[in-house]
Amino acid sequence: MQLPAGLRTPTTIVLGDRLERNLGSMAAFASDSGIALRPHAKTHKCAEIARRQVALGAVGISVATVGEAEALCRSSSDPDDVFIAYPLWPAPDLVVRLRALAERRRRDEAGDRDAVKVIVGVDSVKSAELLSPLAGVVGVSIEIDCGLRRTGVRPDDSVGLLGVARAIEKARLDLVGAFTFPGQSYAPDGQTAAAADEAAALLQATEILGSEGFAVLDDRFVRSGGSTPSARYSSPSALTEMRPGVYVFNDAQQVELGVATMDDVALVVAATVVSRPAPGRVVLDSGSKVLGPDRPAWVSGHGRLMDWPDARIVGLWEHHAVVSFDGVEERPPDLGEIVAVVPNHVCTAVNLVPELTVVNCAADGEAGDIVETWAVAAGGKNR
Amino acid sequence: MQLPAGLRTPTTIVLGDRLERNLGSMAAFASDSGIALRPHAKTHKCAEIARRQVALGAVGISVATVGEAEALCRSSSDPDDVFIAYPLWPAPDLVVRLRALAERRRRDEAGDRDAVKVIVGVDSVKSAELLSPLAGVVGVSIEIDCGLRRTGVRPDDSVGLLGVARAIEKARLDLVGAFTFPGQSYAPDGQTAAAADEAAALLQATEILGSEGFAVLDDRFVRSGGSTPSARYSSPSALTEMRPGVYVFNDAQQVELGVATMDDVALVVAATVVSRPAPGRVVLDSGSKVLGPDRPAWVSGHGRLMDWPDARIVGLWEHHAVVSFDGVEERPPDLGEIVAVVPNHVCTAVNLVPELTVVNCAADGEAGDIVETWAVAAGGKNR
Repeated sequence: MQLPAGLRTPTTIVLGDRLERNLGSMAAFASDSGIALRPHAKTHKCAEIARRQVALGAVGISVATVGEAEALCRSSSDPDDVFIAYPLWPAPDLVVRLRALAERRRRDEAGDRDAVKVIVGVDSVKSAELLSPLAGVVGVSIEIDCGLRRTGVRPDDSVGLLGVARAIEKARLDLVGAFTFPGQSYAPDGQTAAAADEAAALLQATEILGSEGFAVLDDRFVRSGGSTPSARYSSPSALTEMRPGVYVFNDAQQVELGVATMDDVALVVAATVVSRPAPGRVVLDSGSKVLGPDRPAWVSGHGRLMDWPDARIVGLWEHHAVVSFDGVEERPPDLGEIVAVVPNHVCTAVNLVPELTVVNCAADGEAGDIVETWAVAAGGKNR
Repeated sequence: MQLPAGLRTPTTIVLGDRLERNLGSMAAFASDSGIALRPHAKTHKCAEIARRQVALGAVGISVATVGEAEALCRSSSDPDDVFIAYPLWPAPDLVVRLRALAERRRRDEAGDRDAVKVIVGVDSVKSAELLSPLAGVVGVSIEIDCGLRRTGVRPDDSVGLLGVARAIEKARLDLVGAFTFPGQSYAPDGQTAAAADEAAALLQATEILGSEGFAVLDDRFVRSGGSTPSARYSSPSALTEMRPGVYVFNDAQQVELGVATMDDVALVVAATVVSRPAPGRVVLDSGSKVLGPDRPAWVSGHGRLMDWPDARIVGLWEHHAVVSFDGVEERPPDLGEIVAVVPNHVCTAVNLVPELTVVNCAADGEAGDIVETWAVAAGGKNR
């Protein structure tokens, strides 16, 4: 991959044409499947990409925090429909911020425009009660645990599930749907099983709610799931909406799961070879403070090199990536050479930089000139 | 631990009195050992802490990048002696920035003041050659690999070592010393062996250089080593300087290595319990985007809870920390309760936030009021 000349490293780069291809491909899949697409913006955190997703048919965006929503639903050209797919704890200041977000009036050329539609995740009676001041202001969706054992109500816990639903009803909040995250898709060969878990959990929870008279058969009731690894296996009979995030860029994890190929990777970190301490070993200036330290046990290294698919990052420190070329036929890069590194987990990598440098790729797939930079507007917005 | 009231979470908090105690303790150890202290500022990235370190006797600071040096040696009250303990690749723009840094004249009340003393790490002939425009402007130190197999020249590679030293001489650069990083200290029971490796490597390299007439017996020749886990085992007969970084705050890794106790931990992330999906399991809003995803195999979880030392973070996602209280006698925290979380690796945790909230602790060791906030001035300065 030919990177633009004169880069200072490490620099986080978006490959523009690959991004467009990934955006288009997922939008087409969702459209063909009849499942609404509500991409998770925690991956890219960029208003520019959120706008492209909506322009390609997304019904809105998903985020994890109020701060991400505030950063990405700011101007009239930004998405106006946001799902905070997280069981927020509605502390008093958060209730104030949610109201301000939902009632935000954003100017466009023609003047004021509709406020932002806000949906909040809930998985406890107590949080539903605390959200009651926002009745009529935000919608809520019940989180269901489809097997990840993270947050959410178990779909077979009918007492717990109905308790939350009744608390929502009592708080006069609008129950707009149920959602789940099939994170068990992040395991080798785990994708189809994760999608099946997700479908079963959403259908079971819906049935329980429906049996007690909740309006789940209403066309508006959203059954939302989806992760990037499981997205292509989503069940149109179970899901009405999916929330993949990573697909916009992909990363080494997706490649190792077989969900994407290196050609689908639309974000790389340009890094310089600063040391060649031994034959077959080079050290790059892309450490964990730019690649991110994520490394699940099933991933074969701390990241990959785009042009040396068989090389592995065998050691990662804050400012050092040690790459082994053991068994690699191609010549390793020279001292001072700039190479393209694929992070393991692109969401945390993007969160480490204030902006992304966008490169316009040439027709032959090689990177060309720098086109623009995009602010990572929602970077670090953990609250 | 009583945290200040009204915190928004997640928030990264410095416990002021513990920080002062850690700073003083390492300064006293260095002074008693006759080893100069040059703390690594990549941990805290705060001008306020760098200044305290120098006030307590540090000869200067260590950093990993030119950007960190630029951020921390800015005003006349900042350190004026900085060692970039990294084998920089001297691309043309970096040479320009190094010169500007070294020739920076910083105003104090009385007018101009001396420029910043800059030392740069080198481990290849080529990088020494490229630094030649900076002869008389910066000093250089040769990196020695004491067994970590990261960067640096092996101390038994006399041909390689002398090649680098002669390239430095030929470039008319001032060879001020040799340095090493005993990162193998980050392993259970690895501290004394790492300190011994470090001492042996620095002495061997010095002997090789001395045998070929390099001025290593000059009192000014610096033999620099040290990591926080190995610092207390540093050999005064081998080291003239040490560069621990993490000791200012400590973290869960240091606690699990036995290098620090929970009482020595001076940085925590305040987090809210957002979900209690099952008995003995709570979910906090401090995910990997604020704690950092670092997790070496020898660490027992993704971070620790200050007040529940036997609890473990068994799952970590970007915005979720799942805590198991299996086998814990104390009552787990309630929904909405705010708890103090100790990150595994404090350097990457600090790098994730724009500022640190400093809390003045009460005499009984409990946290009191918020005193001030410190900008993480060198955060994200990876170049």
